[in-house]
Amino acid sequence: MSDVVGVVVGVLGGTGPQGRGLALRWAGAGIEVIIGSRSAERAESAAAELRAEAGVDTVRGLDNAGCAAEADVVLVAVPWEGHGELLTALRDELVGKIVIDCVNPLGFDKQGPFALPVEEGSAAQQAEKLLPESRVTAAFHHVSAVHLADLSIAELDTDVLVLGDDREATDEVRSLADAIPGMRGVYGGRLRNAHQVEAFTANLIAVNRRYKAHAGLRITDI
Amino acid sequence: MSDVVGVVVGVLGGTGPQGRGLALRWAGAGIEVIIGSRSAERAESAAAELRAEAGVDTVRGLDNAGCAAEADVVLVAVPWEGHGELLTALRDELVGKIVIDCVNPLGFDKQGPFALPVEEGSAAQQAEKLLPESRVTAAFHHVSAVHLADLSIAELDTDVLVLGDDREATDEVRSLADAIPGMRGVYGGRLRNAHQVEAFTANLIAVNRRYKAHAGLRITDI
Repeated sequence: MSDVVGVVVGVLGGTGPQGRGLALRWAGAGIEVIIGSRSAERAESAAAELRAEAGVDTVRGLDNAGCAAEADVVLVAVPWEGHGELLTALRDELVGKIVIDCVNPLGFDKQGPFALPVEEGSAAQQAEKLLPESRVTAAFHHVSAVHLADLSIAELDTDVLVLGDDREATDEVRSLADAIPGMRGVYGGRLRNAHQVEAFTANLIAVNRRYKAHAGLRITDI
Repeated sequence: MSDVVGVVVGVLGGTGPQGRGLALRWAGAGIEVIIGSRSAERAESAAAELRAEAGVDTVRGLDNAGCAAEADVVLVAVPWEGHGELLTALRDELVGKIVIDCVNPLGFDKQGPFALPVEEGSAAQQAEKLLPESRVTAAFHHVSAVHLADLSIAELDTDVLVLGDDREATDEVRSLADAIPGMRGVYGGRLRNAHQVEAFTANLIAVNRRYKAHAGLRITDI
């Protein structure tokens, strides 16, 4: 497995609950984090909060382009609606970098959540198409933002499925999951099998509603 | 939760590994089972083996139509290729019954497994369309046939996601999962969210290949 010491992780959409929560946990694990947002001011404001919460000085905020340019590994944690447009704009900054897509294209109606159709097959495959010179992976789809934000939960009790076609890249992303206490990164297949992992979030939301929980996944027998 | 005592479970495709394995475990849990197969002789031959393995006399074999007609709850465990044709032929026998679809429409190529497109959205939704007077659920997609068949594994250490729009039906199917030691039935959403649960089997196969395992799922925080 790779070593994540010294890796700078950028979080595009780092002011949203999923990105913010992962940033908090990585910062707490000693990893340097750059929060990205459309507004550099909002990014720096969120970064200041995270520094205080995590008790570290290794979180800073930049606009999304600055975040993508300065980070070594970049998590895409923006709403699905802005996904394609943002990645198109950041193509140059993301050349050669490991990109982790955690976006779940979901719709909601009176019957609850459901998976949206995606022309490229999945958000991750859209990223792969838009970023041909990046090393695109998919991971962190199912981690509860509520649990991430709650530092009274010291161990997160969840596996993170990491998908991608570049073995070194998926190993490094697995290490970024392993760095968070209680979390384990598990290789989960090639990027062409990302759709069902993204869409499965709809099932976990249904579980959460039925059981009043913040459900996660564990993979057994490994 | 429902009580499964006295329920007769039919297993269409009960001579295949998934159906046979679940039949073995249900028989061992004291549930009466009818193995269905295209050939009544092959069904009865498999039933005889299962009676010996499970040490019970409550397993018998019939052709698929006989199995569907005599069982209270029917598991569909046939290959995807024959799924639509079989259910069309058994529509009358399955009227009013709980049908459990565990079929995973998958393809394989040099890069491994992948989800096949299904016109109705999923195997379970195809069943729903073909069996408008049955109570269609989806469950048991991810249970390792190898582990089911290995009676040295007393507890299976896996959750079973149960999907469907009929609450009483999903509760009864959950009870059929709970009846098998180590297994737990978890409500997993409406039938329209079955595609990703079926397709997720491709990811578990990728996990199995990478980790030399027979992976299953656990849902955390419930």
